[in-house]
Amino acid sequence: MNDDHDARMQFAIDLARRAGELGLKYFRDLENLTIESKGHQDLVSDGDREVELFIRAAIAADYPQDGIVGEEHASVAGQTGYVWVIDPIDGTANFVRGIPAWCVVIACTRDGEAVVGVIHEPSTGETFHGRLGGGAFVNGRPIRTSAATSIKEGSVGTGFSNRADTENIAVLIRTLMVQGGVFFRNASGALMLAYVAAGRLLGYVEEHMNAWDCLAGMLLVEEAGGTVAKPDPKTVLQKGTLVITGGKGVFPKLQELCSEAFGL
Amino acid sequence: MNDDHDARMQFAIDLARRAGELGLKYFRDLENLTIESKGHQDLVSDGDREVELFIRAAIAADYPQDGIVGEEHASVAGQTGYVWVIDPIDGTANFVRGIPAWCVVIACTRDGEAVVGVIHEPSTGETFHGRLGGGAFVNGRPIRTSAATSIKEGSVGTGFSNRADTENIAVLIRTLMVQGGVFFRNASGALMLAYVAAGRLLGYVEEHMNAWDCLAGMLLVEEAGGTVAKPDPKTVLQKGTLVITGGKGVFPKLQELCSEAFGL
Repeated sequence: MNDDHDARMQFAIDLARRAGELGLKYFRDLENLTIESKGHQDLVSDGDREVELFIRAAIAADYPQDGIVGEEHASVAGQTGYVWVIDPIDGTANFVRGIPAWCVVIACTRDGEAVVGVIHEPSTGETFHGRLGGGAFVNGRPIRTSAATSIKEGSVGTGFSNRADTENIAVLIRTLMVQGGVFFRNASGALMLAYVAAGRLLGYVEEHMNAWDCLAGMLLVEEAGGTVAKPDPKTVLQKGTLVITGGKGVFPKLQELCSEAFGL
Repeated sequence: MNDDHDARMQFAIDLARRAGELGLKYFRDLENLTIESKGHQDLVSDGDREVELFIRAAIAADYPQDGIVGEEHASVAGQTGYVWVIDPIDGTANFVRGIPAWCVVIACTRDGEAVVGVIHEPSTGETFHGRLGGGAFVNGRPIRTSAATSIKEGSVGTGFSNRADTENIAVLIRTLMVQGGVFFRNASGALMLAYVAAGRLLGYVEEHMNAWDCLAGMLLVEEAGGTVAKPDPKTVLQKGTLVITGGKGVFPKLQELCSEAFGL
């Protein structure tokens, strides 16, 4: 089984980098990008769609029996128990406006649990990857979550979507700051999860994320020694999940903050 | 006079890039970086100090009669009316934790007003520059602030320091979101100001920034066609200022938000 996972991991790393190259072509030619709104603050461009098609074609070629769930196109049912969960461009609002903080996200799941996670940021050339039971890495170097024991020792990433209550995020930020913490939001949830895995952020919390935004990053955080509120494997692919992740030393405090802010 | 400004601008662009190269050497060797706390969430590293000394030495060599105000070392009085205002690494909290969003900031002021502004982000290779009356550019291409007329059309950057009231930032974020806006905070104020100039963010607001963090970016925003709440040229170098900047179409709304949040 681990051989299978290893092969899928290497495939996903290579694929994320090639998809990132394609994304960069659109990013460098923003004037000609076609952008549509899927709802308030929810954007999609032909860059997202084309990069997702590129990723899907590569998966269909190498793993034709696997399923696929992606942000911009319909799901593909598989027969192997493996389902690829992909976000071609996480941080589309950044992407379409020229902010370099966006990434390609590729997770491979089995029975609703991530076994491989890759997050690649083309603008900086950083590739974060991890395999269930195999550790987490950035550009091949092992990463660890923060050893901090207080939320005063760094920043906590957060985000939101039109699926969450705006009042809740305001409460989260007030509560975090009253306790001496600092919030961070670069508008790419997957990238911030990768930063948690690398110990750059203390943690990341969001009331609701879709599977393609969070499963890869949550695996990275766990494999880097952090703690993650486990999503329900039966529902996460279709319905998404609450996300609470962080270094072991701050996780209980992050749970407490989320309980207060999100009314858990 | 404009010849003087042009020469200083070219000097500043070249210097910011060289300083960025030096900063990257420290950034790529974070394990050996010495980090000190100057107060809650206020960090400095030997990287900041060494890069600032490098910039100061270059200014002293080419413009020995000019004054210098920088974040990490004592001010130098000048005799020409020109004062260089520099932040060797804006976004130190990112820098010391490995988050790529940090930049070198070099402004040249005359009588308390910026005449040249350069913001260079080494991780992405983007150099933003502008000269009073001469426009604003990224890597040589002209930039414009956002043409948006509603804060619902994009994101508003913000930040805070231990000089501001944490309650105020919570009010700002709640008010912004209640009105359909979105906040952005990548923890480098100067970089976010550059993003405003380039139309990537609608605006940037912060209750108080130091001169070395904001003067370069505020010049860029104005030269890119945006609007800026003018700082007091008599006090800004020593005392810093309130910062409200944005595209013309959203600036009045940003002022309104800040009035409510900061009790102006």
